[in-house]
Amino acid sequence: MNTLKIIKIGGNIIDNSEALELFLSQFAKLKGPKLLVHGGGKLATKLAKKMSVPVKMNEGRRITDSDTLDIITMVYAGKINKNIVALLQANNCNAIGFSGADGNTIVSEKRPATTIDYGFVGDVKKVNTNTLKVLLENHIIPAFCAITHNKSGQLLNTNADTIASELAIGFASIYNTELYYCFEKNGVLEDIENDDSVIENINTESYKTLKDNNIIFEGMLPKLDNCFHAIQHSVQKVCIGKSDMLFNKNTKHTTITK
Amino acid sequence: MNTLKIIKIGGNIIDNSEALELFLSQFAKLKGPKLLVHGGGKLATKLAKKMSVPVKMNEGRRITDSDTLDIITMVYAGKINKNIVALLQANNCNAIGFSGADGNTIVSEKRPATTIDYGFVGDVKKVNTNTLKVLLENHIIPAFCAITHNKSGQLLNTNADTIASELAIGFASIYNTELYYCFEKNGVLEDIENDDSVIENINTESYKTLKDNNIIFEGMLPKLDNCFHAIQHSVQKVCIGKSDMLFNKNTKHTTITK
Repeated sequence: MNTLKIIKIGGNIIDNSEALELFLSQFAKLKGPKLLVHGGGKLATKLAKKMSVPVKMNEGRRITDSDTLDIITMVYAGKINKNIVALLQANNCNAIGFSGADGNTIVSEKRPATTIDYGFVGDVKKVNTNTLKVLLENHIIPAFCAITHNKSGQLLNTNADTIASELAIGFASIYNTELYYCFEKNGVLEDIENDDSVIENINTESYKTLKDNNIIFEGMLPKLDNCFHAIQHSVQKVCIGKSDMLFNKNTKHTTITK
Repeated sequence: MNTLKIIKIGGNIIDNSEALELFLSQFAKLKGPKLLVHGGGKLATKLAKKMSVPVKMNEGRRITDSDTLDIITMVYAGKINKNIVALLQANNCNAIGFSGADGNTIVSEKRPATTIDYGFVGDVKKVNTNTLKVLLENHIIPAFCAITHNKSGQLLNTNADTIASELAIGFASIYNTELYYCFEKNGVLEDIENDDSVIENINTESYKTLKDNNIIFEGMLPKLDNCFHAIQHSVQKVCIGKSDMLFNKNTKHTTITK
């Protein structure tokens, strides 16, 4: 089986044009089938403020009313995604930008309102790899933004980490699939103040202990839940760290194992 | 040779959500390979006003500074394109949204500044059909917005009519290619006030006469220039009219011939 690398980048790269250009030039050189997933960074919040659309968050997650969905679609699928595609093409990487609506690749369901109504936020129900497989076989590189659809014409805002893990799971029966979460730290840290305190390996058992001891908390929890979800569903390799881990073998990072 | 239909829609459909939904449900049912190109409608101007970005036009063409390019990319490639893709998917039409950067499908060159500097506006230099051909053979329907790139990382605002004609010319050696320009009138009119006065056929010779007699003028000239450019470069059929011409054989429209 061929190896497929699924690489997710976040705000620390997207919000810094120099970092983005460097990352994309390195990504372009990676050999073999690969797929990029990008988050939204701070641009959507900036645009919302400019347009006087109130920004509402709950536990770090954006509450997505109709105006906010428009903004997210414009920023994620428009400005960020198309600039990434143009930069990849400049580096001779034949990218095509995707939302989950394109090629019906990711179908999600609007999250039901409970005590909190997240609005047009989607939870992934199904990943269709057929079209993406045709592209990958033709050396075309899909670049995903964090938007999906419900197959009934409604776009939905969806967590980029989740999109990356669900795509990885979807491909795990076709490729030897590796999932890389790139973020601003060297990995999961023993001491959040010390970037050298990388925990190089976390498995299901040590994850429980780390949570019980409050060493892993808050924003890292959903990220790690996505990692374990992937590794428990046949994804071969899951890593978290700075994007350098992809390009330099000696870069310390965290590897997730069963 | 298979027949490929390239269909361009403009503001009269895009700016009216009911008209857009109806058109897309009909487009979805069209048999055989097909490709959609959409313009931008009035949304970009509305967003520019909301964001206090001045709108500058010259002879009906938008002068595209850096802020305006961002707006256009957000509106055309983001909001409009992804909503069209989601609506097509809801109608079981397996669409993927494209700019010219995606798959390096349309390479353009920034228009040189002369007496007027149009800014980030691109004139098409090359159409690459390889990737699109793979998609069409796999029953995937490309839906293009009016943005291209220069293959060096720069997105460029490009006329949607031109994108449609250049794509048609690019495919003319592979498919029996038909190009349909859908707009708000029944076709090219003898009397602009009378929608029944459709000129059913225009050829190179009669075009000259119609121009000389000021029957065709202003906005129709670049549209017809695109039509003749296509028909002179092996495109098999070029038609102008209301979108009904695609779905109802008896709909009057204008056909362009050599």
